[in-house]
Amino acid sequence: MLRTNTCGELNLTHIGNKVTLAGWVQKTRNKGFMIWVDLRDRYGVTQIIFDEERTDKVMLEKAQSLGREFVIQVQGTVIERVSKNPNLSTGDVEILAESFDVLNPSKTPPFTIESETDGGEELRMQYRYLDIRRKPVRENLIFRSKVSLAIRNYLSAHNFIDVETPYLIKSTPEGARDFVVPSRMNAGEFYALPQSPQTFKQLLMVGGMDQYFQIVKCFRDEDLRADRQPEFTQIDCEMTFVEQEDILTRFEGLLKHLLKEIKGVEVFEFPRMTYVEAIQKYGNDKPDIRFGMEFAELNEFAKGKGFPVFDQQELIVGIAVPGAASYTRKQIDKLIDWVKRPQIGANGLIWVKCNEDGSYKSSVDKFYSQEDLTNWAKQTQASAGDLVLIMAGETNKTRGQLSALRMELAEQLGLRDPETFAPLWVVDFPLLEWDKESKRYHAMHHPFTAPKPEQMSLLATDPGAVNANAYDLVLNGNEIGGGSIRIHDAKVQETMFDLLGFTKEEAQAQFGFLMEAFQYGAPPHGGIALGLDRLVSILGGQETIRDFIAFPKNNRGRDLMIDAPASIDSTQLEELNLVLKQKK
Amino acid sequence: MLRTNTCGELNLTHIGNKVTLAGWVQKTRNKGFMIWVDLRDRYGVTQIIFDEERTDKVMLEKAQSLGREFVIQVQGTVIERVSKNPNLSTGDVEILAESFDVLNPSKTPPFTIESETDGGEELRMQYRYLDIRRKPVRENLIFRSKVSLAIRNYLSAHNFIDVETPYLIKSTPEGARDFVVPSRMNAGEFYALPQSPQTFKQLLMVGGMDQYFQIVKCFRDEDLRADRQPEFTQIDCEMTFVEQEDILTRFEGLLKHLLKEIKGVEVFEFPRMTYVEAIQKYGNDKPDIRFGMEFAELNEFAKGKGFPVFDQQELIVGIAVPGAASYTRKQIDKLIDWVKRPQIGANGLIWVKCNEDGSYKSSVDKFYSQEDLTNWAKQTQASAGDLVLIMAGETNKTRGQLSALRMELAEQLGLRDPETFAPLWVVDFPLLEWDKESKRYHAMHHPFTAPKPEQMSLLATDPGAVNANAYDLVLNGNEIGGGSIRIHDAKVQETMFDLLGFTKEEAQAQFGFLMEAFQYGAPPHGGIALGLDRLVSILGGQETIRDFIAFPKNNRGRDLMIDAPASIDSTQLEELNLVLKQKK
Repeated sequence: MLRTNTCGELNLTHIGNKVTLAGWVQKTRNKGFMIWVDLRDRYGVTQIIFDEERTDKVMLEKAQSLGREFVIQVQGTVIERVSKNPNLSTGDVEILAESFDVLNPSKTPPFTIESETDGGEELRMQYRYLDIRRKPVRENLIFRSKVSLAIRNYLSAHNFIDVETPYLIKSTPEGARDFVVPSRMNAGEFYALPQSPQTFKQLLMVGGMDQYFQIVKCFRDEDLRADRQPEFTQIDCEMTFVEQEDILTRFEGLLKHLLKEIKGVEVFEFPRMTYVEAIQKYGNDKPDIRFGMEFAELNEFAKGKGFPVFDQQELIVGIAVPGAASYTRKQIDKLIDWVKRPQIGANGLIWVKCNEDGSYKSSVDKFYSQEDLTNWAKQTQASAGDLVLIMAGETNKTRGQLSALRMELAEQLGLRDPETFAPLWVVDFPLLEWDKESKRYHAMHHPFTAPKPEQMSLLATDPGAVNANAYDLVLNGNEIGGGSIRIHDAKVQETMFDLLGFTKEEAQAQFGFLMEAFQYGAPPHGGIALGLDRLVSILGGQETIRDFIAFPKNNRGRDLMIDAPASIDSTQLEELNLVLKQKK
Repeated sequence: MLRTNTCGELNLTHIGNKVTLAGWVQKTRNKGFMIWVDLRDRYGVTQIIFDEERTDKVMLEKAQSLGREFVIQVQGTVIERVSKNPNLSTGDVEILAESFDVLNPSKTPPFTIESETDGGEELRMQYRYLDIRRKPVRENLIFRSKVSLAIRNYLSAHNFIDVETPYLIKSTPEGARDFVVPSRMNAGEFYALPQSPQTFKQLLMVGGMDQYFQIVKCFRDEDLRADRQPEFTQIDCEMTFVEQEDILTRFEGLLKHLLKEIKGVEVFEFPRMTYVEAIQKYGNDKPDIRFGMEFAELNEFAKGKGFPVFDQQELIVGIAVPGAASYTRKQIDKLIDWVKRPQIGANGLIWVKCNEDGSYKSSVDKFYSQEDLTNWAKQTQASAGDLVLIMAGETNKTRGQLSALRMELAEQLGLRDPETFAPLWVVDFPLLEWDKESKRYHAMHHPFTAPKPEQMSLLATDPGAVNANAYDLVLNGNEIGGGSIRIHDAKVQETMFDLLGFTKEEAQAQFGFLMEAFQYGAPPHGGIALGLDRLVSILGGQETIRDFIAFPKNNRGRDLMIDAPASIDSTQLEELNLVLKQKK
């Protein structure tokens, strides 16, 4: 090794030791006769001191030229620091330099390599290798590695087998768009990159592997929304001879284990909520339950009182914002503007202030009595000092709008504490959802999800009413995982494809292998897939997954560092039997 | 769970327990009034007994219809078996069935689900999910999972960080062919799948991650030779501030750890051999040293004795085959035929029998004295009873031919014991090799390998003579890993690209990001990559990697189970801006 110690380990117990360190120059302070260098590596920062009296004048001169991010190797003696730095694990000591070498100089970096940097997003991504030197990014990647290993060890200890499934598979038009890979050896044919190893893990269950997991890259060629990546990492799991309860228990166990091991947080039983309840209470199926502000439906208390705006609406629904009765007119107007933005698209907001004296003041005092407002406050569980906010309109749309407002308010009120963890299970998802555009059913989870056994007969008569043993694991307002009990019967699978609008031929061409497999003793099975990028970022107390990915792509799907994608050789195209279409 | 116990855990301590098992019918024996069913799952086999006297006649009747591979759930009591089966962990007990359900019936499988199957390779791959039910395949996959976890834990314990590098990267014409992925959002441009994360792991070192590992899929679009897969798994590692010795020590440590943990085999220091020595002694750079038969060069003892066949050759080289002096003329002729096959392409074989009485009998007695033959025997370290085999011709070709013969003989003599492990390091590889066809240098490892520092000046004058701090880890005649100290200097990297025939523009377009990164404080670094598929198969005592891959492709690169690659929708092509060339 080019070092005897790392830059993170020396302390008072090492005083007098001759050591060799290697690392990057974080910064220098130059007093002419003395130079201090903060030397950095993955493990920490150690102060090096060059001193014309105690060491060598020539060396001191040489040290003058050290710039930020130079890579150097230093020999010296560990001495006690006069002015100690309690914020640094190595802050009690410094290295009195006896000799040093510049292993590699550095140009001035395009942004500062500090915890807080002046580099913009694009610049940081272009020079990601420099960005990674910054402590927050570095710590995120180390954190991810730690979480990942903890998951593997937990699942392995519980008899899950890590099986690698193929990356070069077959394209299926169901779901999102596939990335495809032209085959040279099979001219005119393409592989596809997996959106998930779904069918393969099911075949592993048919193959008797019993319990499977894999931490695996998946691919979706979607128009990227903010914070989506074309390639992402999934913790993919499947179990045989299980019922929903077994899967919930196991993966509740996994998340509890991670929270405890990684965060030192003890969470007891996870609450469970049906899909219907989640939608009613929070307006979405991944509620953030770190705070209240549950929805209260007010139709019965707000209609027929002569307020025409409410009378004609499908749903009137409100929340109580804690301690917000003191909001000024201006503050409330700002909220009203916020919900009227096109991204939310609401018409407005009705408000009721719950005064400390028990009285109410509202924007609809003209139409409603104090008794009415008392009812509203009661329904929304508002206390004195709270502000009740009410929206009305078409049910689904209004719920979505109020949900967005609820999250925004929680953000503003600081209720989304990243170090508080509130997991829950959302269960009993509908099997299908009706798509108005294509006028057909879509699978709510995916086409392999089993209908609830007791509702099987409804499939023929009222498929939209059928629920599934499908579940989502939600953490702090994010869906971090989802799964279901799968179909293991060829006939049911056929019915399902039929409901989803597949012709027999299409089903056969795309999933014939699976339906055939189901005829050779397929066992009951089910599973779950968790998004590692999201899980790690939430556990890390942050919201953006990009900061937990070593080399992310931007939202045009480009890697700015290596400048990919890029054009390829015409001979490569030739070999692949492809021609580029002329650009219009 | 649909079971209280697995099929692999019940024994005499469970006698009298009411249990529920679920699994596959391995086989049934029917005596009319009694039926035995071997019930199988991942964990083992348990015998179920249906008995008209002790249980129920109706149930017995129902059990008559159970066929192979039916999935059933059985409730019953654990009882002691009358005739125990010592080969089975559960062989002391059986389950007296009280009730059972068929969870899913099965058609008759296309091949028998037994350790020894009647299914051919193609059929087994088409129904891989049934093949996986067979114990050897299942055990291989479980073994792989275990090895993989042991590697992760070892490396993590030694401060390696598991970092995921991207799969959608940029195509580079150097090396093998890339699989490419057309980008929809960037029309006319392509990603490429990584042949290895080489540049990314180097950028992680530039980024200060210090020690990195990843178990990662890599892709090569090559014409597949037997036992090569278009996608394969690599244990990819890189370290900073290291010299060659540090890497050898660490990964010698890893392999020792695996051999001990997984196989219970203790191996002490790994031998090291230079590339030149390996070629001279074994005729190839991945020698199997589980057995001797080292090459002896005989030019000085065989030329100028009037045997024209030898006199005109560049190299005369022999090996001593232990105990083979007793080979009949017919046996030796068979060997001669073997080396004359076009795959080997030799002209013939000269032999010398070392008789027990100390005399020699050879195929060239006419030209050589007993003293000459004594010299040959001495050089090849032949003892009485051995057979010396000699080949002659152009040096490289002859070495290759004799190496093939040596391996064939070892196979025939049973010297390649799969449960003996003989690792070694081959070091000091040449930096470049001259390619006669393209009349230019190719990188022996890859373009990022550093020349030996003390030979740097030779780069300009005699590049072919320059060695690298490059090394291969060899196990039982297979290269299981290879690596090197890398270039970390932008200028040296430029020189290297120049030597390899890149124009400045090509180098810039393809690896500009790397050369730029080297200007911002790139530390000295090096690493290694091990082939997981190969490593696991050798540790598992087998030669074919396919048996250790859950869903392998055949050697036309096809997945026979899902029938991929396949044609894709015209709309997909349209979106990707591609047109298929008309087939000729």
